[in-house]
Amino acid sequence: MTNDKNIQVGFVGLGIMGRSMASHLLKGGHTLHVFNRSRPKADELVAQGAVWHGSPGEVAAASEFVISMVGYPTDVEEIYLGKGGIIESARPGAVLIDMTTSSPDLAKQIAVSAAQRGLVALDAPVSGGDVGAREAKLSIMVGGEKPAFEKALPLLKLMGANIVLQGGPGSGQHTKMCNQIVIASTMLGVCEGLAYAKRSGLDPETVLQSIGSGAASSFALNNLGLRILKNDFAPGFFIEHFVKDMGIALSEAERMKLDLPSLALASKLYQQLVAQGFARNGTQALFKNYEP
Amino acid sequence: MTNDKNIQVGFVGLGIMGRSMASHLLKGGHTLHVFNRSRPKADELVAQGAVWHGSPGEVAAASEFVISMVGYPTDVEEIYLGKGGIIESARPGAVLIDMTTSSPDLAKQIAVSAAQRGLVALDAPVSGGDVGAREAKLSIMVGGEKPAFEKALPLLKLMGANIVLQGGPGSGQHTKMCNQIVIASTMLGVCEGLAYAKRSGLDPETVLQSIGSGAASSFALNNLGLRILKNDFAPGFFIEHFVKDMGIALSEAERMKLDLPSLALASKLYQQLVAQGFARNGTQALFKNYEP
Repeated sequence: MTNDKNIQVGFVGLGIMGRSMASHLLKGGHTLHVFNRSRPKADELVAQGAVWHGSPGEVAAASEFVISMVGYPTDVEEIYLGKGGIIESARPGAVLIDMTTSSPDLAKQIAVSAAQRGLVALDAPVSGGDVGAREAKLSIMVGGEKPAFEKALPLLKLMGANIVLQGGPGSGQHTKMCNQIVIASTMLGVCEGLAYAKRSGLDPETVLQSIGSGAASSFALNNLGLRILKNDFAPGFFIEHFVKDMGIALSEAERMKLDLPSLALASKLYQQLVAQGFARNGTQALFKNYEP
Repeated sequence: MTNDKNIQVGFVGLGIMGRSMASHLLKGGHTLHVFNRSRPKADELVAQGAVWHGSPGEVAAASEFVISMVGYPTDVEEIYLGKGGIIESARPGAVLIDMTTSSPDLAKQIAVSAAQRGLVALDAPVSGGDVGAREAKLSIMVGGEKPAFEKALPLLKLMGANIVLQGGPGSGQHTKMCNQIVIASTMLGVCEGLAYAKRSGLDPETVLQSIGSGAASSFALNNLGLRILKNDFAPGFFIEHFVKDMGIALSEAERMKLDLPSLALASKLYQQLVAQGFARNGTQALFKNYEP
C-alpha cells in the first residue's frame, strides 16, 4: 500500500491551492479521486484523468490516502466527522491527511476518531502560497504519528520541498499558527516602515535599497513591500483567510493563557479592512490602514 | 582635498561602533584625529597612530572631514552646536558627517548652521551592528547635498558596503527610522511566534526548520530567534539604544500625524524591559516579556 506506484489517492477541496497540489499527485502516477463543493473547479483535473465522486465520503471509500484542502475548521469538521463523511466511509488502514489550516484541537479530535475506526490521521498545513503549490515547493508542517508520516511522505514530497514532522496530532496546526503569528507582526513592521517612508517624503524604493538587505530584511519586506509600493494589492493570500488563521491562533493563545498583544493588534487592523470591503485583497493591503 | 591619500579625518565618539569604524579610516592611509569622552577607549587607536585631541572642537580644527558616532541626540547637539563645538571650530570647506542615529530635525538644523559657516553637513546613520562595523559592511543611509555626498564617498566606502544617498539633510535619519520601525514589529512577531511554539509544547528549533525559510522568514527570525532559543540575551544592539531610536521615530510620526500602533506597542514593551533592568541586554530580550 505504500508502494510508490499507482496509489489510490483521494483529494477533497480543489481551490487555487488544492487544484495545484492534486495535479502533482496525478502527474506522480497515482489514481486521483476528487470532490469539490463546486464541480467546475474539478473539470481540468477530470479531463486529465481524475475520477469525480459525489461526496467526500465517496472519495474516502475509493482511496488509500485521503487528502483535504478546504476553507474553514467548520468545513474540516463536516467532511471528516459528519454523517457519511470521511472517517465513517474510509477503508480500514487508510491515511487521512488534512492540509487545511485549521484548529489544533480539531486535528486531535479527528486523530482520535480516526484511530477508533482503525484509520490514521495527520494534520499537515502548508506555507508557500499559490506559487509554492504550483511549483511543488510548499513547506508542509506535519502533526501525527511517525509511521503514518513515513507512509505519507512519498505523496507529500510530490507537493512540497520542506516537509517536517513537528510532533503528535495537532502539532502541524500549532506550527502553522507560529508561522502566521510571525507573519502578522512582520507585516505590521513592513507597513509602518513604508508608511513612515512615504509620509516623511523619502522615496520608498530608495529606502528599500538601504534597509532591504540588513537587520530589517524579511521575505515580507522584500516581496510584499515591493507590491505595496507598486499599489499592487492582488491576493497572493486573501485577507479573509489570514483573519481566520489569526482567530484560531488567538483563541489557542487565550486557552494557553499566553498574551500576544501584537497579534491581537494585527488581527484588529485586518478585521477593519474586512469591514471596509478588502477581504479578498492580498495581505499586503494592510498598508491601506496607514494611508490618509 | 578629495584626494584619496592622507586626508585629515576627525572622529568623535569611540564606542564599540566608532572604534571599529575609525580603525578602517586609519588603515585606509588617512591621518586620524580623535576625541572620546572617556580617554581609555582611544588608547588602541592612538597606539596605532591616531592623534588625540582634548575636545570635539580641537578635532574639527585639525580635520578636512569630521565624523561623529556618539550616543544621543543631546550629545550630537552639544558637540556640533555647542560653544567651542565642531561647527564653531571647523575649517572652512570641511565636511561634517554625523553617523549617530539621531533626530532628522536636528540633522536639518546642523546642516543649516554648517552652511552659515561655509561648511557642509551630512547625516549618515548606519545599520549592521558591531559585526558590520568590524567587517566594514555597514549599510550607510545618507542625507545631504549630492556634492558633499560624493566628496565623502571614498571615506564612507572604507566603513560600509551599502551606501545610499536618500535625499536632502535629515533623509539619512528618516531612513534609519524606517529601518528601526520595521525591526520593532518584526521582533514582536519573532517573539510572539516562538513564545507560542514553546507554550504549545512544540520544539521551537524544529519549528524554525519549518518556518525559517518561507513567508515568515526574516533576518530577525533566523538570527535573533536562534539566540532566543539558546537563552542568549547578550547585546548585539542594546535595548536602551533601541528605545531611544523608537522614541525619535514615534515623535517624528506624531509630528507627521501618522499613527504607528505597532511601533508604539513595541516601544512600550521595550520600556517595560528597561524598567526591569534589561537596558543593556540585546534587543532579542524582548522575549522575556512573553515568559511566565
